[in-house]
Amino acid sequence: MPKISEKGIAMPASPIRKLVPYADEAKRKGRKVYHLNIGQPDISTPEVALNAVRNIDLKVVEYSHSAGIESYRKGLARYYQEIGINISHNDIIVTTGGSEAITIVFMACLNPGDEVIIPEPFYANYNSFALQAGVVVKPIVSSIQNDFALPPIAEFEKLITPKTKGIVICNPNNPTGYLYSKEELEQLAVIVKKHDLYLFSDEVYREFCYDGNVHYSAMMLKGLEDNVILMDSVSKRYSMCGVRIGALISRNKEVIATALKFAQARLSPPSFGQIAAEAALNTPAEYFKGVYQEYIKRRDFMVEALNKMEGVYCPKPKGAFYTVVKLPIDDSDRFAQWLLESFEHKNQTVMLAPATGFYSTPGLGKNEVRIAYVLKVNDLKNAMECLDVALKQYPGRTL
Amino acid sequence: MPKISEKGIAMPASPIRKLVPYADEAKRKGRKVYHLNIGQPDISTPEVALNAVRNIDLKVVEYSHSAGIESYRKGLARYYQEIGINISHNDIIVTTGGSEAITIVFMACLNPGDEVIIPEPFYANYNSFALQAGVVVKPIVSSIQNDFALPPIAEFEKLITPKTKGIVICNPNNPTGYLYSKEELEQLAVIVKKHDLYLFSDEVYREFCYDGNVHYSAMMLKGLEDNVILMDSVSKRYSMCGVRIGALISRNKEVIATALKFAQARLSPPSFGQIAAEAALNTPAEYFKGVYQEYIKRRDFMVEALNKMEGVYCPKPKGAFYTVVKLPIDDSDRFAQWLLESFEHKNQTVMLAPATGFYSTPGLGKNEVRIAYVLKVNDLKNAMECLDVALKQYPGRTL
Repeated sequence: MPKISEKGIAMPASPIRKLVPYADEAKRKGRKVYHLNIGQPDISTPEVALNAVRNIDLKVVEYSHSAGIESYRKGLARYYQEIGINISHNDIIVTTGGSEAITIVFMACLNPGDEVIIPEPFYANYNSFALQAGVVVKPIVSSIQNDFALPPIAEFEKLITPKTKGIVICNPNNPTGYLYSKEELEQLAVIVKKHDLYLFSDEVYREFCYDGNVHYSAMMLKGLEDNVILMDSVSKRYSMCGVRIGALISRNKEVIATALKFAQARLSPPSFGQIAAEAALNTPAEYFKGVYQEYIKRRDFMVEALNKMEGVYCPKPKGAFYTVVKLPIDDSDRFAQWLLESFEHKNQTVMLAPATGFYSTPGLGKNEVRIAYVLKVNDLKNAMECLDVALKQYPGRTL
Repeated sequence: MPKISEKGIAMPASPIRKLVPYADEAKRKGRKVYHLNIGQPDISTPEVALNAVRNIDLKVVEYSHSAGIESYRKGLARYYQEIGINISHNDIIVTTGGSEAITIVFMACLNPGDEVIIPEPFYANYNSFALQAGVVVKPIVSSIQNDFALPPIAEFEKLITPKTKGIVICNPNNPTGYLYSKEELEQLAVIVKKHDLYLFSDEVYREFCYDGNVHYSAMMLKGLEDNVILMDSVSKRYSMCGVRIGALISRNKEVIATALKFAQARLSPPSFGQIAAEAALNTPAEYFKGVYQEYIKRRDFMVEALNKMEGVYCPKPKGAFYTVVKLPIDDSDRFAQWLLESFEHKNQTVMLAPATGFYSTPGLGKNEVRIAYVLKVNDLKNAMECLDVALKQYPGRTL
């Protein structure tokens, strides 16, 4: 039997997927499982996007341009211009989800063995995309004590070697919900410039900023036109993760020309998804207001409920729809499995994402979990009650 | 300015794209350009597939399972069973086009530096996918003198080194239209088994077999259950290239489990495309009959017209909708550009794909072009007339 590849062996299985059989088993027993573990919002996709697909008037579903349908790219450019990011449609390559934006960018910009610094905890799949490109991830710890603020610049500089080629940020952050300030980004800009690095900025949660905080995009940093690469997606903005439409944006013409060669090899991004995404640009402002109010309500309820529990600390996330919470537990992987396998409260339980999956440094995240507040407040209420009871019964409780 | 990657530099630009500005310029001059250069069929997508998308009853376009919607995979398994490939839905991972099937398979099965043997001329993007995975392509020449039949097995064996890990075939073949016989595949099976190689079989043109020839899939080869990986796509079968739905199929459980980890990293294949592809499984038999008759008509017309031209040789393709033709010219890249830039006949011209782009060995394909017979017979008639006149006027004519 021929051997699989070394990358295939090293490729991490999704940390959440390991729990899926336990969740399935709990459901088979008739138990209600509250899914706080995934970033799949329950918010409706805008009707304008769905209707565009319902009304397609095509005879043949053809390949689109490899960089994406031109009218969509022009519409996207206007979207960015309206939020203060002055780019043209030639600076945009439409990708198959934000995922493909990252894989193409890594392959176009980085050589095997090159290093990127990423504040951890970070989106677990960055590890997978780095591994695919042979890129080495150097984590820098952002700590729950500081509510996951950007680590001091001096800490970044300590990690910089001749192999360092870039810094990856996710802003607002998945998994922490942290929103970087303009000042933090400007500090980062100094070392990016000084060491001539790429700044890969994942801003797929841009629309999810709370408490009057305004999102400041890495694309707005002055003097970094050739360094910044924006990775974006419509998945969360319009609650349509399944359309698989993202984008890769840069003013660096060489990066765009190179990325286009990778985009040409895979022919084109999905046509139906692009049709939905182009129509979604006309989503009425009310939609976003409604989404905003819903998430604020959920967040406020959840943060208060969590911080009332003994030994629990939840920072107040300023963006996205996640939070990383400190729990009085020995091992978040064991706890998450125990919740599904051995616990029930009123025939209900919760599924959480162990934070260990979001850290690259072994041993970190053992007393933290990521919670996605993608459920209605009533469901969140039941889920929080479950969690409170569970923390009192869990054998690995550390209080 | 940070440097782009070595892969980014080495990545070939699409050979056809280089011609696009010349085609655009010809159109600007009011010239009619017949596109014989692309594999974008003009055949209608089945109504049943389009209607499924028009009738979507979704509130939220969610991520699907990373391996694809289960009901679609079950439907696909039945499709394969009906054509004699006995597999279950667990042997299938739905991918974003055939392109992603190849990139995932290469990463899951091959290490950087590993070698794969591919009969050339071959689909140009295999080079790009191999480059992405750091895999080395060892071409083996299949010759127009033999109508592009499988090269003798002894020639394959000459290329096998300790680094050889697989053989890639495309059957029916793009760009040659050649259909491998059961006997040819069984010869190939012997060396695959002997050297414990992977056999990567791209069968996206399976439905396009002519003259009573029956497609024999690599999945039907006995004793190669752990070696064969099928790469498939709905793009050509249902003339819906833009939906971006393909599949990766193998009975090798380790390969599927490994490929799934790569599939999980990119979350899911496009939902709308999967809905269309699942519905397309119910395409009525009449559709395929109509398509078959149309392509036979086109092929027969085209092959006859080409072989009537002085110094031209066109093998009779048994499958797909391409042919590689020998022309009395000095340089197919120059000729293709000249057709668009300097030639017109009754204010019309043709766009061809230089065969140089389909050979990995430098210098080959200079007197060959690929023609896709994806136009109606009337258009093909005009295109052939143009080509005939052009070959008499072309300054680099070798007759």
